[in-house]
Formats: sequence, structure tokens, C-alpha cells
Amino acid sequence: MDNNVATKFPKLAPKGPSGELLLANERAKGTFDVEELSKYMYSEEWLQKMSKVLQVLETEPAFDKTNRYYQTRKEKITTSLWKEKRLIEIAREHQWDETDVQIANFLYDQSTPFTLHYNMFIPTLRNQTTDEQKKLFLEPALKHEIIGCYAQTELGHGSNVQGLETTATYIPEIQQFELHSPTLTSAKWWIGGLGKAATHAIVMARLITNGKDMGPHPFCVQIRSLEDHRPLKGIIVGDIGPKFGFNSVDNGFIMFDHYRIPHVAFLANYSKVNKFTGEYTKPPNAKLSYGTMVFVRAHIVMNARVAMAKAATVAVRYSAVRQQFVDAANPRKWDNKVIETPVLDYTMQQYRLLPAVASAYACFFTGREMMRLYDLNQKAIKAGNFNLLADLHASSSGLKSLTTTMVIDVIEDCRRACGGHGYSMFSGLGQFYQDTLPNVTWEGDNYILTQQTARYLLKTFRNVIAGKAEPSEYNQTINYLTQFMQNPKAKCPATKPSDFLNPELVLSAFGFRAAYGIAKVAEQLDRHGRSWNSMLVEIARISKAHCQFILVRNFIVALQNDRQLAQPQYKPIVRVLRLLASLFALHTMEKELSEFLVASYLSSEQSEMLKQQVIELLDEIRPEAVSLVDAFALPDYYLHSALGRFDGRVYESMTEMAEREPLNHTLVVDGYEECIKPFIKNTTTSSQIELAKL
Amino acid sequence: MDNNVATKFPKLAPKGPSGELLLANERAKGTFDVEELSKYMYSEEWLQKMSKVLQVLETEPAFDKTNRYYQTRKEKITTSLWKEKRLIEIAREHQWDETDVQIANFLYDQSTPFTLHYNMFIPTLRNQTTDEQKKLFLEPALKHEIIGCYAQTELGHGSNVQGLETTATYIPEIQQFELHSPTLTSAKWWIGGLGKAATHAIVMARLITNGKDMGPHPFCVQIRSLEDHRPLKGIIVGDIGPKFGFNSVDNGFIMFDHYRIPHVAFLANYSKVNKFTGEYTKPPNAKLSYGTMVFVRAHIVMNARVAMAKAATVAVRYSAVRQQFVDAANPRKWDNKVIETPVLDYTMQQYRLLPAVASAYACFFTGREMMRLYDLNQKAIKAGNFNLLADLHASSSGLKSLTTTMVIDVIEDCRRACGGHGYSMFSGLGQFYQDTLPNVTWEGDNYILTQQTARYLLKTFRNVIAGKAEPSEYNQTINYLTQFMQNPKAKCPATKPSDFLNPELVLSAFGFRAAYGIAKVAEQLDRHGRSWNSMLVEIARISKAHCQFILVRNFIVALQNDRQLAQPQYKPIVRVLRLLASLFALHTMEKELSEFLVASYLSSEQSEMLKQQVIELLDEIRPEAVSLVDAFALPDYYLHSALGRFDGRVYESMTEMAEREPLNHTLVVDGYEECIKPFIKNTTTSSQIELAKL
Repeated sequence: MDNNVATKFPKLAPKGPSGELLLANERAKGTFDVEELSKYMYSEEWLQKMSKVLQVLETEPAFDKTNRYYQTRKEKITTSLWKEKRLIEIAREHQWDETDVQIANFLYDQSTPFTLHYNMFIPTLRNQTTDEQKKLFLEPALKHEIIGCYAQTELGHGSNVQGLETTATYIPEIQQFELHSPTLTSAKWWIGGLGKAATHAIVMARLITNGKDMGPHPFCVQIRSLEDHRPLKGIIVGDIGPKFGFNSVDNGFIMFDHYRIPHVAFLANYSKVNKFTGEYTKPPNAKLSYGTMVFVRAHIVMNARVAMAKAATVAVRYSAVRQQFVDAANPRKWDNKVIETPVLDYTMQQYRLLPAVASAYACFFTGREMMRLYDLNQKAIKAGNFNLLADLHASSSGLKSLTTTMVIDVIEDCRRACGGHGYSMFSGLGQFYQDTLPNVTWEGDNYILTQQTARYLLKTFRNVIAGKAEPSEYNQTINYLTQFMQNPKAKCPATKPSDFLNPELVLSAFGFRAAYGIAKVAEQLDRHGRSWNSMLVEIARISKAHCQFILVRNFIVALQNDRQLAQPQYKPIVRVLRLLASLFALHTMEKELSEFLVASYLSSEQSEMLKQQVIELLDEIRPEAVSLVDAFALPDYYLHSALGRFDGRVYESMTEMAEREPLNHTLVVDGYEECIKPFIKNTTTSSQIELAKL
Repeated sequence: MDNNVATKFPKLAPKGPSGELLLANERAKGTFDVEELSKYMYSEEWLQKMSKVLQVLETEPAFDKTNRYYQTRKEKITTSLWKEKRLIEIAREHQWDETDVQIANFLYDQSTPFTLHYNMFIPTLRNQTTDEQKKLFLEPALKHEIIGCYAQTELGHGSNVQGLETTATYIPEIQQFELHSPTLTSAKWWIGGLGKAATHAIVMARLITNGKDMGPHPFCVQIRSLEDHRPLKGIIVGDIGPKFGFNSVDNGFIMFDHYRIPHVAFLANYSKVNKFTGEYTKPPNAKLSYGTMVFVRAHIVMNARVAMAKAATVAVRYSAVRQQFVDAANPRKWDNKVIETPVLDYTMQQYRLLPAVASAYACFFTGREMMRLYDLNQKAIKAGNFNLLADLHASSSGLKSLTTTMVIDVIEDCRRACGGHGYSMFSGLGQFYQDTLPNVTWEGDNYILTQQTARYLLKTFRNVIAGKAEPSEYNQTINYLTQFMQNPKAKCPATKPSDFLNPELVLSAFGFRAAYGIAKVAEQLDRHGRSWNSMLVEIARISKAHCQFILVRNFIVALQNDRQLAQPQYKPIVRVLRLLASLFALHTMEKELSEFLVASYLSSEQSEMLKQQVIELLDEIRPEAVSLVDAFALPDYYLHSALGRFDGRVYESMTEMAEREPLNHTLVVDGYEECIKPFIKNTTTSSQIELAKL
């Protein structure tokens, strides 16, 4: 008999009302225009572009996701290379612009060996090269004639960039640098695209010239042959091995053995090394690069928003379809018959999921505000005004830290809220969690980043008490600190739960709590002589408090000031967004309750009111839940989740995906003959059962 | 030229003092006898058994872990089958007893398609079968003549066991049951071992006899041929596909199409179905099975302890080796030269890791106490005394929920505390996290379980106010509730940070906080008529508060009462364990601070003292950190971690493991010819660079 019989499920329906009907029923409950809200967030133009790109991807074999959850690491890498090749071709064919390509990558939702070529190699070349170097490196890179990566982190150094060990020693006699890896820990490590794909790398190495160590500088270095892709002599390069996620990327290592590169490899748009004397010239203003960091972090916050939206979409839709237990006190009926209760009706499930929805919206408004401030700041800098930069840069560090930690928590909370099936890869949340996770470590470790924010907050606090900082519409930090200093014994005025729906009351509370924490830390450091190291726990807390203030404020202010939202047709949308803003603020307050209590700003009674108001908000938002995630406009192709499908065909989808499991392609498992059969005995006793059955 | 050139790292040392030296230095700082502490926890006999088993495994190819992090799903499954086959053979060869086999499985640390055969199939058969059935099923199962699994969960029902859909209808005329899956959602799903390996399954199906539905009952069902392992007719069975972890197990699905099984398949040690009339007889006492649940959960808590110990071992050792930044205020020196600071010296790192160490010890003491109470209870039940059971069962539900949530948090905190390298599979924490994660969902979803605990707590509270519950040495719940009722306005008496080192003060605080929460929930439910559903958030909180009380209490009481520890040679150990008990209690208090504040039990000033005491404890425990994880006695073979090695050869190990990455077995990646080469251009400009280099 043939062993290759694919397993097929019978054509049976799930029990009870179908997912389609349950979701239709949910959608009928929503009180606002879902499409209108999507357009508000993404713009109609972007949504149209997305549907145009989506149509192409859905019929393009290189973009097929059907096999995504079954692939081995090797298959992931080769599939990724194929996808990138086809993307280049498709983009040419359909004359896609940069946004279209970005949308395609967003929808495909999996990094590849080329991702860093686009995200780091090209931008670095754009920014740091001279005209001559643009011709040499940037132009071929844009045409994919060379493929690059960005090699900064080493085996022994990540956060401490100044501690990097790789050296680039200039030899003026031959007008070359000698790249060298002096120790095992100096191996470049974690470099995306380097493992197998890149022909070139931006290498951060300590510039040594005329015997002086000038610290890490960037070099553009060819590492593989352009003829046959083999590593060049003097280089050891490869893949660093399997990771928790991101296995579609060839994160690599590289070591240099006295490897020579020409003078032109030194990226010289800012610093210079004189070709003949080796003399080093410093860059004009180090602060300039801070602007770019703000830009990158605004994007991180916006991406956090999409990631939360994805997780929430899956979990909310599934929770509307998944039924478990009959809630005896409030039995749910369908066609006049009692059905089990959709788990979204349980308060605990709402408490786990609706704040996730609210967080996604909160990150949208803060991401947008960060982009606005970035633009404002770039203009100011061009006019020589660096006033905005410090606050913006400090907040962006803390916001990167806070929102990426939030997003990981949200994905995992949503995954767990999907119960057992959340653990299946078909939920779409497992691999997504794995691939999102590095965000808490890269672009600045989330704990270390809080120190940058805190340093600024403490400095500002000292300025405020010294009378050297004026309140300003561009600096909320100064504003809340000033307010706190005017009344450091202030109390929350709430007398009933609904008082917590007042945006001013909530904002004052968040401002007070942040200021109180900052003042306490300053006191410990400045008066009690505590060391910075001994205060790191509190330092992380004040960064978080500050950034939670920002998230809450941007949400609230947008709902008050946004001109588009002031138009009458947005009224139902604004109503729901206000509920979400309140839920986000109050749920955050509840999570951080001890800090509001320690400051004696909130009383025990008020904290009971706060909790009560949170539960009431959950109840009010509950009927809008599915509509609110629908408004994120995330297509099924993007979600690639059996649980989160728009049509609610959860169980049908689970079984279809199980049919594709490679282990099911044969009836009898490899290893049966050698490892199971020798033990099995078809004795009289056990075959009795079989006999009795026939 | 040959493409199959393996990548090799040069023989270079890492920068600075080696990991060996750094760890030796740490070990010299410890103030207690590490081996003595290990023996105290595991017993000398167990440790000797472990080293005996370890010796065998380390030279046995089927137990080799070298390829673990690179394997595809299929390879994982076949490797697992091979391991099980060899384990059976080795155990016979070396005459291993049950403990030896358990140790082998513990050290191998990866579930297989046979795991549920041992953990569920055999125990269920032992417990639920008649003598006739033991002969038919249990005896062949013990000899591996049949391989079984336990099929309860369905696609549509997990938590709500009473909602299972699979039916087993008795037909007395032919003395057979007909198993049937009426809907898609009735497919058995998630069943470990069912996908590819099992020949038999315990199937939980609704027993229908004489037209009456008696609810879910267990049946022992043959599902695959004992001749050729093919699924029997009337059955659709297969693997449910890839999961977030546990991919070495063939979790499966099965559907029955009017599948007939003999009368003897009904497991009849408790309930009975009359062969001729189909008449059903109820089991004598449903409470009996609660004892088993307590036993299973005591094991879960003990396993939580080992899992935390593993994560903490890896992260603490790595943090002693990993150096980053020079702490300018307190520069670390080595051979009179300033070196970068080992990250374990940063307070934040201590704050992230040392409570994890303390939690592992806390779970050890509570696991041990649960086992003691289980034994006590079994004896009591045999004597007809069910007094202990309710408290024990309720606490065990909440403890399962709390400790498995804690363990996941600890693993992930430890993984993140390893920075970038924590994300590499070589850390040993990635796959470990993935495989441990289902614990929060299976054996009772962690949120749902808290309702069981809370129901008991509320009932006990009502009994206490009704004067129907007496304080007792066996019921701490009654004790702390009674104490609370005597003085519901009590305040914490601490006046300085060190007061928080007083065990009585800490225990009273935890008891008060639990009681206060229970009283508040009872008030809402009983006086204000709030629904159970609307109180689920608070309900989860009181279960947690109760179980944190238990964890803290068991730790403290053991240090006070344990006879072995009272011996003089244990003095240095007890000193350190006391510090850990304090850290565990106070760090937990700090995490849950708002609940102590809301109860007005703690003041703002006291909470500042508490925080200060936590930082001081970190400082005191810091020098013992490596010794404390060494005492967990987890061998390198078990850890299989580049970061957590006993000898500290972190970077050497990372590079050795990277050399084994399959992608590095060829120089040029698959897909290069088709997907990269077509774009690459070896133009004059780019080859210029190469020329200049030569």
C-alpha cells in the first residue's frame, strides 16, 4: 500500500453558529464607520496603494505564505532570496514607487538577507559618503550590483559602541587601511545579511592613524567576490546560527586578518583622513545625527502600533468566535437557544484585550506626533536652532524603550488570550512574537535607553528649580515639572469614578506622578549622594513615567485639537476614540498604581473608583471591539492567521492548515520501522480488542 | 573549487580576563558550602544517581544534544523516537530504576512522542482500569507493546471539559460502543503522541447509554494497526502542525466516523456500564481525584523551581563574564588594570536576576511542602478525613497558576538580561522558553484556575465571619482571615528599612493584604450584588495574593523549623537563604506594592524603606550569586548553553556552535546563482576597490 496518503478532514461544520455569523453579529453592533476611521489613520491614498499591491502579491508565487510555518531555516533563507529577487522585478514591471515597495514588505512581513541592505546599508551610504563614494558605492547599491549590510556589533560589545575592538589602521605610504580583528570577542556578530548574502559591509572599526586611536568610524568594505560570491582572502565570514526568531535572515559574523582596504573605503562625509599625511579632521557637529535617531524611533513607535494592531486583531476576532462555558448568570442566546459564551464576553478577556487595542491607537497618535516634531526639529536645526532637539531626543529614547516593551507584552498577552490555539503557529502570533522580540534589545537596549531619558529629565528638573527653564508649548517636561514645583503636595480631585474620564484630571495625574519620581531621584542623587548605579531601578521608572505621560497626552491632545476629527461626520469615531483614550490612560494608571499612591496623589478610595471606571469602560467598548480592530485594515494575507481571519472561519482554517503539515504527507512516520516496530507486539490480548471491534 | 569548505574561527582568545578566571573569582567570594546546599535540596543519593546517569548519556549518540538547535521538525521527531528506543534499551542494560529513567529524561530536557505514554497513558491505566483491563492495556503498555496517548482536548473545547462533543454510544445488542465525532470542532486536538506515534489513545467521550448523556468518560481505544502502524478504518488521525515550541512532539488530532470499540474499552474502575443492559453506575466519590491533581501540581511547582534555576544559572554566570562599559564612579580592576564592569555589578542587572534566583529557592520550599501535605492528605483521606483537602486543592490550583506564570516571566527576564546573545538559540533559553510556555495554558488555564482558588477563599471568608471556621495549624487561610477580622485597620509597624527583614512583619503584611482583597471582593459580590463575571479581574488578584502568601510563608517557616538546617554546619547556608527569603518577599511586595498601599497597610514612607531594603539585599546577595546558582547543580549537558557553561567559556562556545550551523557548511548560499548573481555587476568602479586592495 502507498504510504503517501495525505490526511484530509471530513467536510463537517463546527458546532454552533459559524464564525462568519458571529463576526457579522459583532460588526452590526459597532456604532461608527470603520472605513472612515481606517482612512483617517492611513489616508485613502495609502489604503488604495495597499489594495493595489496586495492584489499583485496574492497571485505571486514568491510571496506565497502557505508554507511559512513549516519551513526549515535553509528553506526560509532561499525563499527569502527568491522573494527579494521577484520584488525587484515586480517593482520594475509595475513601476512601483518607494511606498509601494514598503507596502509589499510590510504585507510580506518577514525580514530577509536583503532587509539591512535597504534599511541600513543604503541610508548610511546616502548620509555618510562623499560624492566620489556615492558613485562608487551608493549607485551600484541602488541597482543591486552590490549587496550590503551594516557591521557594528561585536561578539564582545553591543551597547558600548566606544568599546568596539576591530581596528582600521591607516598606512599613508600605500594609502590603505588595514582592518584587523585582534581577539575572538572582536568578531563582528549579529550582522543581518552578512552571513550569506552581502558582498559589502559598512564596518565600524576604530580608526588608528599616526598612532592615535580616534574611536569607531565607518568603512565600506567589499567582503565577497563579485564573480563567484566567495569570501575574499583575509576574511572569515559566516552565519551565526539559529536564533529565537528572525531565522529568515542570515545574521552573520566576520573577522579580518590584516585585511587591506583603500583610502576611499573610509566614509568621509563628516570626518576626514588626509590621504597623504593620515591627518584626522573631526566632524562639524555630533548632534546632527540625533535627528536621524529621532526619525528611526518615530518609525519604531509607528511599527509598534501596527504590531499591537495585528496581535489585537487576531485575539479580538478569535475571542468573538471562540465560545467556552455557559455564563449561567447571563446566558448567551442564538436563535433562541442557549449557546456557550463567546470568551470576549468575559470581563477578564476584555481586561486582557481591550487595553491592547487602546495601546495600538495610543501609539498611532504618538508616532504621528513624533513625525511632526521631527519635521519641526529638522527645520529648526537648518535654521540653527537646537532648542527642540534635547527634549525630542530624550523622549524618543524612552519611547523606543517603552513602546517596544509594550508591544512584546501585548503580543504575548494576546497570544495567551487565544488559549491553547494561541500556541499553534497557525495563530500567526508565535512567529510574529519571535520576530518582533529583538526590538527590546536592538537600537539601544531598553534598560540602557532609559538612562538617556532620565539624564535629560534630571537636568531639566535642576534647571527648573534653578529658575533656568521657562514653560513652553514645545517642552512638556518643563511644564509638568514647573506645575509640580508650584504645588508638590497636590491631590487628585476625583470624587466619583466618572471624574476619571476628565482628560485634564488624567493629564495632571500623569504629570504629577512623573515629576514626583524625578524629584525623588534628584534628591537621592544630589542630596543623599547615592551613586547613579544604585539608582538604576528608579531611573528606569522615571523614564517610563515620563513616556507614559507623553503617550497619554498625545492621545488626549489629538482628540481635542485635530481639525479633521472636529468635522461633524467624525463624531461617532471621536466618541469611541475618547473611550479608548480613557481606557488607555486609566488602565496604565492602574498598572502603575503604586506610583500614584506613593506620591499620595491618589487615595485608596480614588483607586477603587479608578478600577471601577476601568471595568465600566471595558463594558462600553466591548460592542465596538471587532469594529475597532477591523479599522486597523489589516488584510488576511498580512495576518496569515487561522484565528484572526476576517471571515471568522477559525476551525475550518485550523484544519486546512493542519492538512498541509509535512508530517501528514505520509501515513507512517520515519523512524517507525527502527524505533517503534521492534517493541510492538500484536499479541492475542491486544489483537483481541481489534477482533472484538470487527 | 569546492564549495563545501567549513567555516573555522581562528584560535584567538577573548579580550580581557577569561571567563574561567572571572567565574573562579566569583566562586571565591561565596561564603557557604555549595555542595552542602545542593545535597540539602536534592539529597546526596539523588545527586549520585544523576552523575551516574549523566556519564552514560554523555557518551550515548542518541542523547547527543550537539544538533539540537539546528534540527528541522522532522529531524526532531525522528531523533526523539531514536532517543526513546535507546532509553528503553539503556535502562534495561544498566538496570536503571524509575528514578534513573526520570533523571535521564530530565537531563535530556526535551519531550518526545512517547512522553505522554509515560506521563498520562500509563498513569491513567493504572488508576482507572479493572484488573481485566490492566492485563489488556497496562501490561502491554509497560512493555511498549502498545504506545498510548491521552485524548481529551478538542478543537472547540479545552477548559470546558463538560462541553466535549465526541460521543461514545453504547449498543448493548453487540456489546460495543460507537465512537463518533459529530462536528469539525469535536476533533480531538493537541494530543501529544497521537500525531504519528501512538497505537492507542485514552479518549474522553460523552458516554451515551440508554439514550442518556452521562458526560465525558475515558475509553482505551486502538487507533493504529499493530502490524504496519496505519490508522485503522473509521479514523482520521494526524499531526496538528507546527507549534511555538514542543516541536519534538507529534501533537495530533483524531476524528471518529462511527468507530466501534468493545465494551472492555470503557475504563471501569470507577463508573460502570452494564454489558448487557447498558445501565450506568456512578463512581463512589468524585473528590478522590482531587488528591491526584494536588500531586500533579506539586510536581509542576517543583518543575517551576528547576526551570527558574536553569534560566538563572545561565543568566547569572553569563552576567559575571559579560563586561560592558567602565563604571566611572566605581571602576573594576583586574591585575591592577581597569577592565569593563561585569554586568552583574549593575544594580539593574541584579534587580532583574537575583529575585529570579530567590524565586527558584522559594518554589523549592513550596514544592516540598506541597508534597508533604499531599502525603498527609492521602493518609487522612484513607482514614476518611477530608478536612485537609479543600484548602490544599484550592491552594494548589492557584499555585499552579502563579508559579507557572512566574517561571515564564523568569525565563524571559533572564533571556533579556543576556542582551543580544540571549536571542541566540545558543543561549539555551530560547527553545527552553518555547517548550515551557504551554504550562500557562495546560493543566488548567492560568486565569481560569484562579477562579477555583478564589471560590474557596470567599467561602472560607464567609465561614470565618459566620464563626464557622476555627484557626488551625493546617489551614493558614482561616488563620490570616481571622487575624484580619480581629483588626481590619492594622498598620505595618516598620519604622526603618531593616524592619522589613523581620519574618513576622513580612508574613503579617502578606496575610493582611490577601485578607483585605478577599474581604473587598466578598463585599462587592455579597453586598453590592456585583456579578462574578464583572469581578474576574479582582478574583484573579486575590488568588495571586493568597498564593504569594503561601510561597513567602513556606520559605520563612522552613528556615525557622527545618531540623537539618538547625545543625551548626548549615549556619552559613541559612544566613544566605534568609537573605534570599527576604529578597523574595520584599521584591514580591514591591511588585504588588499598590495592593499593600490601597489597603492602607503600608504608608508612602514605609514603601520607600522597603525599596531601599531591596537594594541593600541585592548588594548583600551579589557576592553569593554564582555560588547560589552553582548550588542548583545543573550540569552543562542539561543546560546546553553557550552562555551558562560552568567554565565560563562563553565566547569560545558561541563560535564553536556557530561553526556547526548548517548554512556554514557551504561557502556559497543556495539561491545565489538564481537570485543574487543576476543583479551583481563586477563593474570597473566596484572592481576598482578590489584592485586597490591588492
